[in-house]
Amino acid sequence: MLKLDHKSIQLLDCTLRDGGYYTHWDFDEKLVKQYFETMNKLPVKYIEIGYRSKPKQKYQGAFYYLPEHVLKNCQKLSSKKLAVILNEKEFLAEEVEEILAPCVGIIEMVRLAVAPERLSHAVKIADAVKKMGFMVSLNLMYASKWDEELYSSEDLKILDGILDYFYVVDSYGGMLPSEIRKTFSKLKEALSVDLGFHGHNNIEMALVNSLTAIECGSKIIDATVCGMGRGAGNLKMELLLSLLYKKYEVPVDFDILNDLVEKFSKLKDDYKWGTNLPYMLSGAFSLPQNTVMGRVKKRFYSLNTIVRELSEAGDFVEETEIPFFQQDKKYPKAMLVGGGNTPKKFSGAIREYLKQYPEICVIHSSSKNVETFLNLPNDQFHCLTGKEITRLEKKLPSADRDRRYFLISPEAGVVVPGRFSSRFKNALETLKKGCYQEKYNLSTTAMAMDIATLVGVQQILLTGYDGYTGQVSKEQLELFEENQEIFEEAKSGGLILSSLTPTMYKMSSKSVYSLV
Amino acid sequence: MLKLDHKSIQLLDCTLRDGGYYTHWDFDEKLVKQYFETMNKLPVKYIEIGYRSKPKQKYQGAFYYLPEHVLKNCQKLSSKKLAVILNEKEFLAEEVEEILAPCVGIIEMVRLAVAPERLSHAVKIADAVKKMGFMVSLNLMYASKWDEELYSSEDLKILDGILDYFYVVDSYGGMLPSEIRKTFSKLKEALSVDLGFHGHNNIEMALVNSLTAIECGSKIIDATVCGMGRGAGNLKMELLLSLLYKKYEVPVDFDILNDLVEKFSKLKDDYKWGTNLPYMLSGAFSLPQNTVMGRVKKRFYSLNTIVRELSEAGDFVEETEIPFFQQDKKYPKAMLVGGGNTPKKFSGAIREYLKQYPEICVIHSSSKNVETFLNLPNDQFHCLTGKEITRLEKKLPSADRDRRYFLISPEAGVVVPGRFSSRFKNALETLKKGCYQEKYNLSTTAMAMDIATLVGVQQILLTGYDGYTGQVSKEQLELFEENQEIFEEAKSGGLILSSLTPTMYKMSSKSVYSLV
Repeated sequence: MLKLDHKSIQLLDCTLRDGGYYTHWDFDEKLVKQYFETMNKLPVKYIEIGYRSKPKQKYQGAFYYLPEHVLKNCQKLSSKKLAVILNEKEFLAEEVEEILAPCVGIIEMVRLAVAPERLSHAVKIADAVKKMGFMVSLNLMYASKWDEELYSSEDLKILDGILDYFYVVDSYGGMLPSEIRKTFSKLKEALSVDLGFHGHNNIEMALVNSLTAIECGSKIIDATVCGMGRGAGNLKMELLLSLLYKKYEVPVDFDILNDLVEKFSKLKDDYKWGTNLPYMLSGAFSLPQNTVMGRVKKRFYSLNTIVRELSEAGDFVEETEIPFFQQDKKYPKAMLVGGGNTPKKFSGAIREYLKQYPEICVIHSSSKNVETFLNLPNDQFHCLTGKEITRLEKKLPSADRDRRYFLISPEAGVVVPGRFSSRFKNALETLKKGCYQEKYNLSTTAMAMDIATLVGVQQILLTGYDGYTGQVSKEQLELFEENQEIFEEAKSGGLILSSLTPTMYKMSSKSVYSLV
Repeated sequence: MLKLDHKSIQLLDCTLRDGGYYTHWDFDEKLVKQYFETMNKLPVKYIEIGYRSKPKQKYQGAFYYLPEHVLKNCQKLSSKKLAVILNEKEFLAEEVEEILAPCVGIIEMVRLAVAPERLSHAVKIADAVKKMGFMVSLNLMYASKWDEELYSSEDLKILDGILDYFYVVDSYGGMLPSEIRKTFSKLKEALSVDLGFHGHNNIEMALVNSLTAIECGSKIIDATVCGMGRGAGNLKMELLLSLLYKKYEVPVDFDILNDLVEKFSKLKDDYKWGTNLPYMLSGAFSLPQNTVMGRVKKRFYSLNTIVRELSEAGDFVEETEIPFFQQDKKYPKAMLVGGGNTPKKFSGAIREYLKQYPEICVIHSSSKNVETFLNLPNDQFHCLTGKEITRLEKKLPSADRDRRYFLISPEAGVVVPGRFSSRFKNALETLKKGCYQEKYNLSTTAMAMDIATLVGVQQILLTGYDGYTGQVSKEQLELFEENQEIFEEAKSGGLILSSLTPTMYKMSSKSVYSLV
């Protein structure tokens, strides 16, 4: 069996850096102490302790900035070589000396997180870092999307002469071992610098990819305790060590490791990193996991739509040519209906009002309140995304389909879920992007405002835009703030907006009881 | 891209069967309904709904026995082909007809879970099942430990003519893709029956192994929702489908799948299946995960010891020749100290008594209560396993090491954790296995009884064997019952046992206050 030593393969633990995404880069002092004590006794060569960063508006903690006293404390606690990482795009080459000055004498290696399109700029940064006497590693992200030109690029050749390590980063965590083999084989032809691998675990390939990378000559592998890291997380150090012990007889004290793993497992119960179906799909299709999760949580967006829209994966749902919506009829006023509880609560008054003024159109940005608006003389517009189509299908009786327009956004245009039965399918139309959708892509409120503009509405009466109550998630709050922005723009564009029902949004109120 | 259809590869979902290990094979009625509705819409061909079993002493629920009304209900809910599984070793060939009678007309396929050494018996069972008109699948367990003879066995040839599927089961969940390739290549030479793969996820290889099996010609793959299954769990159906959709354009409705996955995720929060370091090690070293977890939880056993003992993996911790314990000195009485709270509570009286009778020896089966017994004139014996050594090291001052014997069991004999400092290391001795350890391997109570026997003790006074209080885990209860058994044997062997402090164990009490 191959024995692992300094000549064959090295391990780097980046728990504090990658795990920091969940804790704003603050960790309990006792845990940090135990972490370093444990690492000191494990066959790990480098500890990446965090970022060096410029000040940000948002609070970030100790291991995001690594001020001098934190660096010194790490040095005191650790018997291993320490590394920090820089977000390459955050710095100019001439800023490197200042940002790294406190690291001199403490930090052994500086790593650069780099996107492929910024390689030429990274050359300058790498050069500046190297001149300060640090080891330099370039961590090139998005390996699943690298194109062929990369391997022959001039920048890569220059970097080859500067770097100590060149890392393949599987940012989306969706590469397969066969792709790892191809990537390493091309890199080994192009470069003489030592290669490394940093794997994410979206489709549970982090271990097998790392073992494959080792077989392909990778000299250094990254991992974190319990896989702590953004989204689906990283390769688990305890899993890597179990296999390296088995396969290469790397010496491991599993008891001391397990004590630390148990501590981080508790953190995991709180922060819940690890993979799930949206993350798996973002891995399989090389989609940013923030985008997928954000859409699922914020937009109640269909996973089918996301996969379909972003992957161009083929014809697994029926392809249907959906015509563009065209409309000459104009409306003086529109009632805009959101997904809150008020329309149901004020149902009687709202219905009375609409019956009295059939020339007012209703625009549903959500299908939540469809039942309140059944069997009315008014024209109604439905803004539909994946999940909304399913909701609507369940709530709308076939008998009530006249005077309704079913509109989908051009982004989701070709996707018709199989279960959206034919009675509705033929009625679907695509809404051309107006200025609201151009700015607020995939927002149904933006769709609604584009419809209002298209049909000449001067005044909008809102209901069901109640705002949040009680505990609110990050995504809900962002949605609230985005809607508020859209309303501000509409007002400054000359539209008159008022809410018929109680709301937390900043706008004038016009009680539904004061209308008739 | 290869299109998945009935000619290429089939999927089998066994969530109710494998997930049942966590729920005693009962599942909420609404969840079962949603499960079948979802499966009906997914590209899954077979649903394995559970076991047919003989009545057991212990309660097991609907999907463990599958009585006729449960079978019929599944038939009503499912549009897919249904399968059940038998534990082959539970039945004789002549019992097959009776146990499967209710399945006729409802169940399409009967699977047999078989250990390699029982292959010849399985032939008879398979034959009896086939004669009833069912499809038959043989799921051969422990693939990581199959030996070469298997592939040329006569039984395998006979089975080839009977079976519809022959499954490779990675019971320990620790196989690597290269082993999958070898195994399938040998099987394809030996067999003409369609092959299948059932993977566990201890080292997160279930997906890559299943994809590899497909590449190697496996016609059928098992998975469960959220990987629900014993210990580290199974291949996750949602992960498999994500990749099959990506790689082979298998049509998947991810929204309906995600709705189900969210329900099972809640179950996972309660039951906490999934991998952890002990399960990873059991995978990597083909050790039964029950054994590893049982030892860690029940014995406070060192992971290093387990790996070391069972894997014969080499010399990763210092080898030290530890001499066998030899002792001519005899003691009339021993005080046996367990890990409960009473010794501390009755500390004053216990210490007074021991000071008065220095000829009584103290035997610690746990290091929990060491502090209560510091600086006494009595000889003391310490029964040490991995974690106990660490505990003891922290609690015992260097000044108090005279008159103490530090004994380890022969099973753990060669393992000295690195952090057990030299002041204790040279004092370690190995306790030869006596009749108690022979019967109760790795039990520290058995070690203590062997010491007592060796040093001629006639009477044992117990403290710290309090029994459980409040919530008790399965492991704690098993330990309690085992200890009770050991005490019964000791009594029937002529030893006089009594507890000095309150206890739930069945034995005579002799209050510590009544002694002096």
